Amino acid sequence: MAQASSIDCFITLGSTYSYLTVMRLPEIQQRSGVQVRFRPFHLGKLFQEMGSFPFPPNSPKTAYMWQDLGRRAALYGIPARLPAPYPAKQPFVANKVAIVGLREGWGEGFIYASYRRWFQEGQEPGSDPNLSESLKEIGQDPQRVVALANSEEVESAFMAETNAARSLSIFGSPTFVVGDQLFWGDDRLDDAISWANHGQVVRG
Amino acid sequence: MAQASSIDCFITLGSTYSYLTVMRLPEIQQRSGVQVRFRPFHLGKLFQEMGSFPFPPNSPKTAYMWQDLGRRAALYGIPARLPAPYPAKQPFVANKVAIVGLREGWGEGFIYASYRRWFQEGQEPGSDPNLSESLKEIGQDPQRVVALANSEEVESAFMAETNAARSLSIFGSPTFVVGDQLFWGDDRLDDAISWANHGQVVRG
Repeated sequence: MAQASSIDCFITLGSTYSYLTVMRLPEIQQRSGVQVRFRPFHLGKLFQEMGSFPFPPNSPKTAYMWQDLGRRAALYGIPARLPAPYPAKQPFVANKVAIVGLREGWGEGFIYASYRRWFQEGQEPGSDPNLSESLKEIGQDPQRVVALANSEEVESAFMAETNAARSLSIFGSPTFVVGDQLFWGDDRLDDAISWANHGQVVRG
Repeated sequence: MAQASSIDCFITLGSTYSYLTVMRLPEIQQRSGVQVRFRPFHLGKLFQEMGSFPFPPNSPKTAYMWQDLGRRAALYGIPARLPAPYPAKQPFVANKVAIVGLREGWGEGFIYASYRRWFQEGQEPGSDPNLSESLKEIGQDPQRVVALANSEEVESAFMAETNAARSLSIFGSPTFVVGDQLFWGDDRLDDAISWANHGQVVRG
């Protein structure tokens, strides 16, 4: 019998494949009974430390990423104008705003709005118009929220989540944490849900 | 209605996730009616050119790869003693033997035997005992085959396949080519089969 449980989703607003997860999660959480908790972190900092960047401009892998992401979006019935602007110039602000929002109860709405604007309207996350419009859309005052997001306290919280991700050996976004198991990538979301409910990966 | 067709699978004996594909293919080909043609290539050379190596020793990503591969093998009911020896010291020979075998009609059997020994008996591909025993197991004379595999002509064929992979913007193994679409990774094998049969990725 399925058991209700919760899993952590380490995410960086700025990660492309995370778009699919953000769009899919509402339905998946409802269907599975599993609650997914977003934990925004500074993936770019971990990339720097590892000396790797997964999607260099004009690389074969980046071209492939857009092709694959488009097919997957179509599979899930998710609209996507591809390629979306990439990489974002100021993803940090978006992630810190998300942290503020998750404390105040509107974080999921902001993440959803920010990703929708990025992949459906061509507005990169963390810069205007995406930043202000995503906040207004969910009834938040951009001036208040961005000031709070840029506070030292929220910066420290952002770094603490980044340290938590490093401690867990996380190296990409989205990464789902279920007990001692990591599941990396939107294409492992179903595996993570399965593990949360059954302690193994099963189909169906 | 499903249409019979064929797709290319660019593969490097030495790639870990390709184990799952090699084990799954017989059943998938039979079920889908799609023929999959192995095309061994020198992925290490492309990694060198790109300046990237996906699974550095002792990295978080490599630890994750074994965890994920183990879960996926269990999902598919495929035995796996993990971590398997990695990276292989002489994968080139195994790939060139596979090229010889694919010409002579026993290539798939060799690839299967070599992967089985690697992931079920802990023998890395391209070195003995794996190389000789995999060949003997399928009724081939190691001395004759390895001499042929090390010929200039087969080396040239191996490089030609590597050039073909580069031209197609391939950057990993396994990669399935269906028309102008690339599908990278064992976890995209179902997508590739779907594309071959339906011209889109569908489930079911």
